[in-house]
Amino acid sequence: MRLRELGVSIGDLPTGPLNAVTDVPGVSVGHTTVIRDQPSVARTGVTVIYPRPDIWTDHAYAAFYGFSGNGEMTGLPWIAETGLLGSPVALTNTHQVGLVRDTLVRIAVESGVPDAFHLPVVSETWDGWLNDIDSFPLTEEDVRAAVGSATAGPVPEGCVGGGTGMICHEFKGGIGTSSRVVEIPFGSFTLGVLVQANYGRRADLRIDGVPVGRMIPYEEVPSPWESPPLGGSIVVVAVTDAPLLPIQCHRIAKRVTVGLGRVGGYGHDSSGDLFLVISTGNHPARQPRGIASVPSEQLDPLFHAVADATEEAIVNALLAATTMIGHRGRVAYPLPADRVEEILERR
Amino acid sequence: MRLRELGVSIGDLPTGPLNAVTDVPGVSVGHTTVIRDQPSVARTGVTVIYPRPDIWTDHAYAAFYGFSGNGEMTGLPWIAETGLLGSPVALTNTHQVGLVRDTLVRIAVESGVPDAFHLPVVSETWDGWLNDIDSFPLTEEDVRAAVGSATAGPVPEGCVGGGTGMICHEFKGGIGTSSRVVEIPFGSFTLGVLVQANYGRRADLRIDGVPVGRMIPYEEVPSPWESPPLGGSIVVVAVTDAPLLPIQCHRIAKRVTVGLGRVGGYGHDSSGDLFLVISTGNHPARQPRGIASVPSEQLDPLFHAVADATEEAIVNALLAATTMIGHRGRVAYPLPADRVEEILERR
Amino acid sequence: MRLRELGVSIGDLPTGPLNAVTDVPGVSVGHTTVIRDQPSVARTGVTVIYPRPDIWTDHAYAAFYGFSGNGEMTGLPWIAETGLLGSPVALTNTHQVGLVRDTLVRIAVESGVPDAFHLPVVSETWDGWLNDIDSFPLTEEDVRAAVGSATAGPVPEGCVGGGTGMICHEFKGGIGTSSRVVEIPFGSFTLGVLVQANYGRRADLRIDGVPVGRMIPYEEVPSPWESPPLGGSIVVVAVTDAPLLPIQCHRIAKRVTVGLGRVGGYGHDSSGDLFLVISTGNHPARQPRGIASVPSEQLDPLFHAVADATEEAIVNALLAATTMIGHRGRVAYPLPADRVEEILERR
Amino acid sequence: MRLRELGVSIGDLPTGPLNAVTDVPGVSVGHTTVIRDQPSVARTGVTVIYPRPDIWTDHAYAAFYGFSGNGEMTGLPWIAETGLLGSPVALTNTHQVGLVRDTLVRIAVESGVPDAFHLPVVSETWDGWLNDIDSFPLTEEDVRAAVGSATAGPVPEGCVGGGTGMICHEFKGGIGTSSRVVEIPFGSFTLGVLVQANYGRRADLRIDGVPVGRMIPYEEVPSPWESPPLGGSIVVVAVTDAPLLPIQCHRIAKRVTVGLGRVGGYGHDSSGDLFLVISTGNHPARQPRGIASVPSEQLDPLFHAVADATEEAIVNALLAATTMIGHRGRVAYPLPADRVEEILERR
Repeated sequence: MRLRELGVSIGDLPTGPLNAVTDVPGVSVGHTTVIRDQPSVARTGVTVIYPRPDIWTDHAYAAFYGFSGNGEMTGLPWIAETGLLGSPVALTNTHQVGLVRDTLVRIAVESGVPDAFHLPVVSETWDGWLNDIDSFPLTEEDVRAAVGSATAGPVPEGCVGGGTGMICHEFKGGIGTSSRVVEIPFGSFTLGVLVQANYGRRADLRIDGVPVGRMIPYEEVPSPWESPPLGGSIVVVAVTDAPLLPIQCHRIAKRVTVGLGRVGGYGHDSSGDLFLVISTGNHPARQPRGIASVPSEQLDPLFHAVADATEEAIVNALLAATTMIGHRGRVAYPLPADRVEEILERR
Repeated sequence: MRLRELGVSIGDLPTGPLNAVTDVPGVSVGHTTVIRDQPSVARTGVTVIYPRPDIWTDHAYAAFYGFSGNGEMTGLPWIAETGLLGSPVALTNTHQVGLVRDTLVRIAVESGVPDAFHLPVVSETWDGWLNDIDSFPLTEEDVRAAVGSATAGPVPEGCVGGGTGMICHEFKGGIGTSSRVVEIPFGSFTLGVLVQANYGRRADLRIDGVPVGRMIPYEEVPSPWESPPLGGSIVVVAVTDAPLLPIQCHRIAKRVTVGLGRVGGYGHDSSGDLFLVISTGNHPARQPRGIASVPSEQLDPLFHAVADATEEAIVNALLAATTMIGHRGRVAYPLPADRVEEILERR
Repeated sequence: MRLRELGVSIGDLPTGPLNAVTDVPGVSVGHTTVIRDQPSVARTGVTVIYPRPDIWTDHAYAAFYGFSGNGEMTGLPWIAETGLLGSPVALTNTHQVGLVRDTLVRIAVESGVPDAFHLPVVSETWDGWLNDIDSFPLTEEDVRAAVGSATAGPVPEGCVGGGTGMICHEFKGGIGTSSRVVEIPFGSFTLGVLVQANYGRRADLRIDGVPVGRMIPYEEVPSPWESPPLGGSIVVVAVTDAPLLPIQCHRIAKRVTVGLGRVGGYGHDSSGDLFLVISTGNHPARQPRGIASVPSEQLDPLFHAVADATEEAIVNALLAATTMIGHRGRVAYPLPADRVEEILERR
Repeated sequence: MRLRELGVSIGDLPTGPLNAVTDVPGVSVGHTTVIRDQPSVARTGVTVIYPRPDIWTDHAYAAFYGFSGNGEMTGLPWIAETGLLGSPVALTNTHQVGLVRDTLVRIAVESGVPDAFHLPVVSETWDGWLNDIDSFPLTEEDVRAAVGSATAGPVPEGCVGGGTGMICHEFKGGIGTSSRVVEIPFGSFTLGVLVQANYGRRADLRIDGVPVGRMIPYEEVPSPWESPPLGGSIVVVAVTDAPLLPIQCHRIAKRVTVGLGRVGGYGHDSSGDLFLVISTGNHPARQPRGIASVPSEQLDPLFHAVADATEEAIVNALLAATTMIGHRGRVAYPLPADRVEEILERR
């Protein structure tokens, strides 16, 4: 189930054919989902996003924005310095970022990437309520499997990959995606968003402005938490084929906050709300004299695109998730699609 | 007319007694409103905010966040370096920031402020559609009058001070304010917001999530613009007596985006969306060993406070504004309160 | 007198023909020097740098870095947001930044620059020891004169323009300039630096590594200060025709610190050490599909160029300055060139 | 051999008793040095710095500055957001940052640190010329050994810990340390620096301003490189017991550049010059109402301290290093102390 199937769309821009980050030409996504009860209760995984197939050698412009910094993303100093991304982007759980990061380095080395060293980008959100995170269940093989499975086409959403053990607005969270197509004088471009959504209070959840969260009480759908939430974050990766400079990627990244804020994110203290925006429209190393940059005054549709697609991707993550029983028998229930439909129709 | 009078409140925190930035102890606000037709059509002004009466000598912690940078705010390098604000904050039109800035320096010199030099903070939004901005109508006396009139108590809203000539979401804009009271283990604190609102498309205007803008067509209330908007910005100044460090003021400043985004701000390219957050809860120079800092894990209510108060202050600016005929006979109509009431009741 | 005339060069890169910022094609510089004793003791001025003649309409990529923030530079939010500079850059005294800024706006309006508003860049250092800064001696006409006199060719150094009343390393300071030519596979490019130097302790002054300041005691050349310095700053403007992106201009700007640090700058608390780097090698608005970017791995010579040229420009400012008697009979003596020559020969 | 033993001191501030980062009360340092030829040629290691023994629970204010971003440091988003450091700091080689990072998480979990998740700080420089870095020689046990060996007292320098395989200014590099004591009205404080030095060209090396590198030709001491250097970086960790706010730690961090620049660092494109500054003078979580902040106008001695100690720590790293034969028989020779002594005496 996705938001569009409930007859609701966010903003006035059209989506790409899949309404997914993979609508951007060249983007592929892979998931490894680890759900097992022995030797420890694992509800975790890895998601890998290739902005283009040869990202290890054909680096792309990118920028990071930390709306709320209670999280990890490796690879930031080089992106801050040069605006260049030279690796796929991986999402996982908080305690095994290092494993995923070093495994990406190994893969680069094994693949013969000619650089002498690698600074891959890996981010995380905390799944320690449903996942026995202190058992460090992921393995190098899990990372390799996610990389190996990366593919274009529809992107599985909900309890998959790095999103397996997530909780969002006190419902089951996970991976979600959405895209927008913008037509501007400079050309026609696609911007796609993928989120790993793991943040927020139920009382703050809104869908297209409607305070859905307040209308679904704990009596109807219990909270997954026995006590105050222990963590919560959202990682947003946006990719576009619009040719942007790094500073323009940063402008897009700041606008992710608009979409997140409209769904009900406040950047809580315990939340790592980390945004990465990548433009595949340039090939800095290969065509250093043929760089294009969407003129400033044509950027507004891309600002709308990233805010609207972020909002929709979060809701898609919520709608795709399913009930999960995890570590110590804790249960996270999904946002009930039928109730959402009913509430939205009533307005 | 203010939003609360329509029976609507934003978020679940209580306001201060005035629901204004002046609810924060020590804050005063002064306006000079310049409306005249000779020798040029002037629809402009100056607004001055004193975070505390002796801000020139008892500097306060502060931080800046530029969500969209198409605007001016002087005084930024020192705030970025030290987190210290050592002047009142003034808001005016884009072309006379320098006049206001140097006049504040003169006032400091005349007042015998002991520092050898001054780096005051002055920001702006563009009122050139209603105001003949290229005639540079403001005078040094106008700035002195705003400073002289600064007072605690209720804050005039709408077409006053720096907000005189503003346009917001294609209705008449201007100055708005709101406040919130937060009760946390560390203490009870007030956070107040003042906005100079001059940004946005009508189609994007939402009040408490309801897409009010789309429901009031141009046939009902004409747009002030004959053609695409030429500019548009919002300056947000938040003051709190919660004792914060500069880095914590910066956290609050980033969360202003949430409130702005929910009303319909996207940080458009032509928009200077500049936020300044000031904490009066410390006296860095006078008590350098007695600085207090709200513990990180107690900050969430302040994040809600600034987002919610920003949202409400923008709507208050819209509701307080009145029809204005300006330069070249251009007309800006206000957001009709009765229609808003009707729309919000219907949901 | 310039450093090269003492037989000393900094670094191993060649200079341009003038060893000045005007070696960069299209750059022009104008000064207004205000030295008079009535009605107040004025030792101040304005310096204007045009990175290219049509900078108001053919905006250039640029970046700011604040090494020490006790100073003012207007126009920063737009540069931070977009990396675009759309005005000439002016340098003046601390208390009249606003006058210069608004006058540049007036000039843009009068010149028919088509933008609806302007956010010019004006920076400053404090000349209040020699100049009666609280008398606000500069006028709009002084600013217009500096703009009107902007020219290519040799740049007057020392006690001119914005540098008129400066003090640097406890000698008479002022304006200095230097340039470097870099030959890299991507092309042959010039980088020029102009400084307004007004910072530093004598004990810290080094020229090409030699601790010259320590070797010239106060008995030989008195300090201009009767008491601890009241202020002190350096503004560095670097321009290059190497085609850089904004993020690359920022890389160059950070490396200015290397040159400043080698001469003896520590970024003291009272110092506003503000650096602006401008690349004229691209025409973002006119050729948005033909942007060039020096490959990362070819940037090192530009890093050397900016550090070395900054070091040399500061020394040039010191060597060009002459004895100045100012406000309240205070005297600032120059760094004695013959003693410097003697000291450097002895090593 | 250390620089002081050659009769040279940098700057005019006194050192602490050990002239090491461990002069700061509570600081301990541990090294694991891995030198073996089977199964692969390993010349690498791990260095761990505890700013205070209970840093996992008594978090300290800190700030990061990236002078040149071609490197990795984990844990940055939380430090950027809150200015809080909640882990020891580890330094290692580029390709095994993840291993070290996750092992620190494991240690925190095993130690019963009460937080639900951990975001430790690990940085790196590239040792792949002497170390067979693509064989990933470090193990979890190596990390545990470094943690276990952390101790106050003298700090081994040169080819130890994370510095084992380093090359600096084309001599053998490694770990170096130095400290300064500052007496200011606010109190007496120590600032200590530890560097992992792995950057730079020989031609640029200066000691106390003297161009030592240019005076030691390759005929006298061969370069370790057969071809242009493949990488090169420097990580600088400074700790002080002066009570600073995060924004003040950031001010100190920017001034590290001064010391690095004076020795001959330019922030080359291939260099990750990453600086972390930690203040142990406050206990934010334990005493949130008793935070102290050195007044701005008393910070200059700390700016001198960090610049001077950085310069001296780098030279100490060079002087302590010894000849190392590594991967593929490559040889890195040390900076010859006797030649340095001779050159410095001659001036």
